[in-house]
This record gives sequence, C-alpha cells and structure tokens, in this order.
Amino acid sequence: MIELYGYWRSVATLRVRIALNMKALAYEETSVDLAEGAQHDERFLAINPNGSVPALVVDDEPAITQSLAILEYLEEAFPVPPLLPADALGRARVRAIGLLLAADYHPVLTPRVVRRLTEDFQASAAQRAAWVRRWFRDGLVQAEARLMGDTATERFCHGDAPSIADICLVSHAVVGAEFGAECSDLPTVNRIVATCRQIAAFADALPHRQPGAPALNPRG
Amino acid sequence: MIELYGYWRSVATLRVRIALNMKALAYEETSVDLAEGAQHDERFLAINPNGSVPALVVDDEPAITQSLAILEYLEEAFPVPPLLPADALGRARVRAIGLLLAADYHPVLTPRVVRRLTEDFQASAAQRAAWVRRWFRDGLVQAEARLMGDTATERFCHGDAPSIADICLVSHAVVGAEFGAECSDLPTVNRIVATCRQIAAFADALPHRQPGAPALNPRG
Repeated sequence: MIELYGYWRSVATLRVRIALNMKALAYEETSVDLAEGAQHDERFLAINPNGSVPALVVDDEPAITQSLAILEYLEEAFPVPPLLPADALGRARVRAIGLLLAADYHPVLTPRVVRRLTEDFQASAAQRAAWVRRWFRDGLVQAEARLMGDTATERFCHGDAPSIADICLVSHAVVGAEFGAECSDLPTVNRIVATCRQIAAFADALPHRQPGAPALNPRG
Repeated sequence: MIELYGYWRSVATLRVRIALNMKALAYEETSVDLAEGAQHDERFLAINPNGSVPALVVDDEPAITQSLAILEYLEEAFPVPPLLPADALGRARVRAIGLLLAADYHPVLTPRVVRRLTEDFQASAAQRAAWVRRWFRDGLVQAEARLMGDTATERFCHGDAPSIADICLVSHAVVGAEFGAECSDLPTVNRIVATCRQIAAFADALPHRQPGAPALNPRG
C-alpha cells in the first residue's frame, strides 16, 4: 500500500508521480492544499515535521520525504525499470542534471521563499510572478547548457531511456510553462520534454490530470 | 588522481571535502574564487558549463558536478566506509535530511540568488546579510524538527555512524556560523555538530583550514 501526500501543481510531487508510474506502482494520492496552508496543519506535520510535500508512506512505515530521496528509494526497492543507468559516472551525470533543477533552481521559487520577498521587500504581485517565472526559466537555460552538445545526451537526457534527469526536467518545464516560463527556444530541452510527454507514465502524472486540479490551461 | 574544484567557504565544497576525507581519498583542490566571479570564466565553464562549484574530476573523466551527486558517486565507487546505511528506509531518511538542507534551504542563500535581491529589490547590504543568515538558520531549525525525538537519531543524525546527513548538517552549520546563524539553542543539531567536529575527516575539511582562506574567525 503506497500513499502519496502531494499537491496537484507541486513540481516535486510531479517528480514522484512520474516515477511511481514508470515503476507501474499503484498508489493513492492525498492532496495537501498548499494554497490553503494545509502543509502546516498538525495532522500533516505528524507525517512530515518539515511541512513540505511530497511525502510517501509505504505499508505504514515512517514517511519518506524529499522527492529525490523518494526517487532513490523507489529505485532501490523496485529496480525495474531502472531510473538510473548502470555505470557510476552515468549515474552521477543523471543525478547532477536532476539536482541542477531540483536543488539549484526549483527551491528558490517555492512559496516559502516568495512569501519572504513580500515580507522583506514589499514585492508586488507582478514582482513575485516575475521572480517565479525567471527561476523556472533560468533552470531550463542551465539544463540546456548542460545537455546541448554533450554526446551523452541522446533521445533522453542520458542515453536512450528516461531517467531521474528526465523526470526532473519535465516536471520543471511543465509546471514552469504554467507560470509563463517557456523553453521553445531551448532546442534540446524542448525536444526531450516533447519526447517524454508522449510516454504514458509522464502524461498521466501531469498536474491538470490530478483530482482537484482546475480546468486545463491551454498551455498545459 | 582526484581533482576537486571548489572554494574555501562554499558549503557544497565542504560536503565533498568531508566525504573525500571519510573515504581516505587523496585529492588536490583548485580554488575557483567565487568572490572574484571565477566560476564564470571560460576555463571553468569548460569543466562545468553551469558555472558552479564543486566539480570533481577523477582520472580525467568528465567532471562530476552537484555535491550530492558527487557524494553518491563516491559511495558507489569507494563503498568503505559507507556514507549511507544498509536498509532502504534508512537510506531514504539519510538522503532526506541531506536534501532538506542541501536542496530546500542552502540554494536560497547562494550568491546567484542574493545578487537578484539587489537587482530586483535594491536590497541593502544589511538586508542581504539578514537574508543569508535567516536561510542558514531556518535550515537548522528544520533539521532540529526532523531529528529531535526521532528514535532513529542517535549519536549521529542516523544511528551510530556519520552519514551524508551529518555531512550536510555540519557543512550548513559551520558555514552558517560564519554568517552569524547560531544553533546553540537547537540541542540535537548542536550536539551532533559538536560530535562530528571531533572527527578528523570533518575537522580537516573546515573552511579556515583550506589554502587561500583568511585568518580564523573566532567562531569558526
């Protein structure tokens, strides 16, 4: 029994949904409404004392938090199909591309940071939106710099099979597009995201296909 | 032959130095002077097109980037002593504590973000310093919330041996103290950091013991 605590539009939840789908694991998702501050409710803090999604509960064990730790857990507990290549240097490259997006760029645009811009600098709604859009975009630009012209980049970010790198790239790009960050001028990113979106494990995980999500945005 | 490209005060470089010491691996460190913008020089971009430290080059292979990807690489290539426990849930807990600090909190206080506060909001030097101090501190507070009262927390963050979680905690706390973020009121964090600092692999990696670092700060 696998329970996922997440939020329909959360980039980090999307990463986990794609991985669960790739591993063909059945799960139930409980929505933690970040827009309503439900991540700070005592009930959720008992699951994750840090008050962040996603959290994954497998067979009533203590929750696993942090999307990349969840992906590594799934890879170790359910190795087929693999989310990482077999060789150590290849694994390092895939993890580094994932971390480039999931650690260097995505955290900077999360609500906990954007809230501080208002508190500290009286940021306007337009300034907050520009901040979010720009960090989404900068992450995609850095991913392009990393992927483009590297012979290890093939059909996917690394070789011929989707990996943690593709999971992080697609999650960043898809939610980024919702916030107005485009990647159409980034040829490698654009091509790989389009390729992944053809795969059911990715397509079925997308935000607007989740319960509780609003009607589809034309870009989504 | 292991070459580490880093910077004496970089939190992420410190993580890698501790891991290399724990694995008893000899390495040579080349300083990339972040204060001078050397990470954007063409010479370094040829090593890491994303212009960030650390980068690790092993036997002239392509550079491995992102500190957590480097730690996982070292764990796979040089398994003894381990930086992760043996069981999948324990490994997930260790990785999650590491990511809590290295992904949720540390990226928000890096120069690439702080620079934007000045550009977008005309942040003063005092406001920039407060921003950095607060995100260091918030990470430690969240680590305390995660570690405190969890029976899996023992002498170290997880059980009786130092792991990736301790590496990330000590790196965050030690450099945070340099920037004025204290953890003396966070009993679990404070205790584990003090315990780790007694270990040579941690002590020898500290910023002020690196070539090019200024004279020791009284707190360092």
